[in-house]
Amino acid sequence: MKFSRKVEVCGLSPVRKFYPCEVAAAARGIQVHHLNIGQPDIETPEVFFDAVRNFEDKVVAYAPAPGIPAFLEAVRDYYQRLGCEISCDDILATFGGSEALQMIMSCILDDGDEVLVPEPYYPNYDTFIRITGGVIRPIPTTAEESYHYADRSRIEPLINEHTRAILITNPGNPTGVVLSEEERRTMVDIAKEHDLFLISDEVYREIVYGGRRVSTMLEYDDAAENIVVVDSVSKRFSATGTRVGTLVTRNKQLILEASKLCQSRLCIATLEQAGAAAMYNLLKSDYYADVLSQYEQRKDMLVESLSKLPGVTFNSPEGAFYIMATLPVDDAEKLQYFLLEEFDDQGETVMFTPAEGSYSNPADGRNKIRIAYVTNPADIARGVEILGRGIEAYNARKA
Amino acid sequence: MKFSRKVEVCGLSPVRKFYPCEVAAAARGIQVHHLNIGQPDIETPEVFFDAVRNFEDKVVAYAPAPGIPAFLEAVRDYYQRLGCEISCDDILATFGGSEALQMIMSCILDDGDEVLVPEPYYPNYDTFIRITGGVIRPIPTTAEESYHYADRSRIEPLINEHTRAILITNPGNPTGVVLSEEERRTMVDIAKEHDLFLISDEVYREIVYGGRRVSTMLEYDDAAENIVVVDSVSKRFSATGTRVGTLVTRNKQLILEASKLCQSRLCIATLEQAGAAAMYNLLKSDYYADVLSQYEQRKDMLVESLSKLPGVTFNSPEGAFYIMATLPVDDAEKLQYFLLEEFDDQGETVMFTPAEGSYSNPADGRNKIRIAYVTNPADIARGVEILGRGIEAYNARKA
Repeated sequence: MKFSRKVEVCGLSPVRKFYPCEVAAAARGIQVHHLNIGQPDIETPEVFFDAVRNFEDKVVAYAPAPGIPAFLEAVRDYYQRLGCEISCDDILATFGGSEALQMIMSCILDDGDEVLVPEPYYPNYDTFIRITGGVIRPIPTTAEESYHYADRSRIEPLINEHTRAILITNPGNPTGVVLSEEERRTMVDIAKEHDLFLISDEVYREIVYGGRRVSTMLEYDDAAENIVVVDSVSKRFSATGTRVGTLVTRNKQLILEASKLCQSRLCIATLEQAGAAAMYNLLKSDYYADVLSQYEQRKDMLVESLSKLPGVTFNSPEGAFYIMATLPVDDAEKLQYFLLEEFDDQGETVMFTPAEGSYSNPADGRNKIRIAYVTNPADIARGVEILGRGIEAYNARKA
Repeated sequence: MKFSRKVEVCGLSPVRKFYPCEVAAAARGIQVHHLNIGQPDIETPEVFFDAVRNFEDKVVAYAPAPGIPAFLEAVRDYYQRLGCEISCDDILATFGGSEALQMIMSCILDDGDEVLVPEPYYPNYDTFIRITGGVIRPIPTTAEESYHYADRSRIEPLINEHTRAILITNPGNPTGVVLSEEERRTMVDIAKEHDLFLISDEVYREIVYGGRRVSTMLEYDDAAENIVVVDSVSKRFSATGTRVGTLVTRNKQLILEASKLCQSRLCIATLEQAGAAAMYNLLKSDYYADVLSQYEQRKDMLVESLSKLPGVTFNSPEGAFYIMATLPVDDAEKLQYFLLEEFDDQGETVMFTPAEGSYSNPADGRNKIRIAYVTNPADIARGVEILGRGIEAYNARKA
């Protein structure tokens, strides 16, 4: 039987491909430190579990296709506290930020259409875009420029008649870049002038360091038709397994087109929406201050530990909970296999995410990795120590 | 901004388009009887709520992309009890049967590819297929033939170089058709001989009347590469709002391609999978006998009530919980608007699903409706009584 050309050009997840080796290492008694997956160890808020436990209906019935009113209202109120006048009709509840992205791409891309994406990017964007027949046109960024990209001279030459949208992650995954007010304005202006969607994936919104303001692209009322925000409870509330996200836009036509897709899959999970509503309402309090300070400590520990490794270069992140690092090795994937299959430091080893999948040309990411700092500072420091010893052993073995 | 050609040819849900009129009727104090939506009133099994309440982790973390082991094992064991030797690697957990269908279509269809579907069909199939660039080629069926379709002379002339799959719902929605053993074998043979996928949506599997055997297309070992089964806990366990489905196939390449899509959206909800595993394990007992007898009573009541309406023709269903009926009116959608906006019988009115969305050529379904029998027998009888009086009033008004 024949498979679609669209799925054949998609790849398997670079985060998950080392899983069999990890299982084998664990079976040999090796303790594996995880600097690879963005799965925070911070507890999911108790209000989520309370809401799920207190569900009183005897039947877990279909929810309305766009979301249950309590959830949509909690999201609307949250954005209003951020200063954005949106209504419940501007919001669609989705299966995580992932489904919001899938729906947006299905609504706007035909075969051969292009989406501009700052590179390195979140690897799953590639699948969301390719499965609709579209393709990523990368906006190159560099560690030397702290991964900033918002200037016209870099972006406008990439726009052509196939360009449909610019997709950014702000705060950035995997780079940790956070756009300044001026840079955000530039991105909005480019989208407006070229009649493009500006899709802003803001699932790390609250995780910004150095006193930066928590912001959203929805603030720009003059580009309401262009701006589409993707959001999720996953990272914000350490609730990745609940799969509740949102697509938010004041573009009425996009809401209508995406509603066709929402209706076709009927609804997202009823209980999880009740729990998610309770979590959004937590943000009325100072709940986030403590979470943010934990991530800031973790970032500081990672930056300090990583600075000690000879030949490793990286940028201190401005937001989110990842660092992109360049390693003094020929191939980070080969290093990862070596660390899982041939190496240990006192019975321990470490995993990270090789960055090839974050680049259109995989060779550009060959000696680069993404490190997630979502566990306790001592574990992070130990993981980096093992990484340093692993790099030494890997290079010594080859020499 | 431009939208994709693919989404532009998709439609809004015919089940949900009358919602604003329903809200307005309720606001006028009219009680609305629901014969339109397949939302059973049977209680979701207590084991689901127990599993969700007893979730002990402090963090609702990502599940594995293909599903949690407890869920996959429960599904595998269930199929083994049905006599099918499948392994956990043949199963992917999906956001309801809906996502399984979306994934399958994305994996096999490019622009212009065709899927054969017996008509009338479940309207959302049209969206799942069109959003990938594909198109439905209908296999016409009639009430006079009890909606049966499994004969070569009807199907083979429809197969051409664009045909990629045959998609059936068995037991059928909206027709209630249940294929005989011989008919199932015919469908399998056609798929094999023409190198097509046979996608069998079996979400109503247990709901078969008259002592028919509970069966699945996975029984045909000689066509393991061709057969793909879509399943869900929604209808079987009256748990539509949990959004847990499965894609099951022994076609390893399809599992690999679909895994790319599973990995890109990370996982389905963790808690709901634990609850779904507990529900599948219920089927080790005689749990279903009672559920089935309730549906059989409801079907009998609907058949009896509907038989009293002059000019209404229909077929007694063999499975699932819907009846397709032909009404003595010019246009079932106009009748539905009339019933919601201008009519009441002692302060009550009724909703059904006009069948236009179940036909490639909407005119073929103009005087047809789908009735769901998922509430208690007295409500069903009263709903049908109102329908009869509404038809009279509608036709009298026009005359």
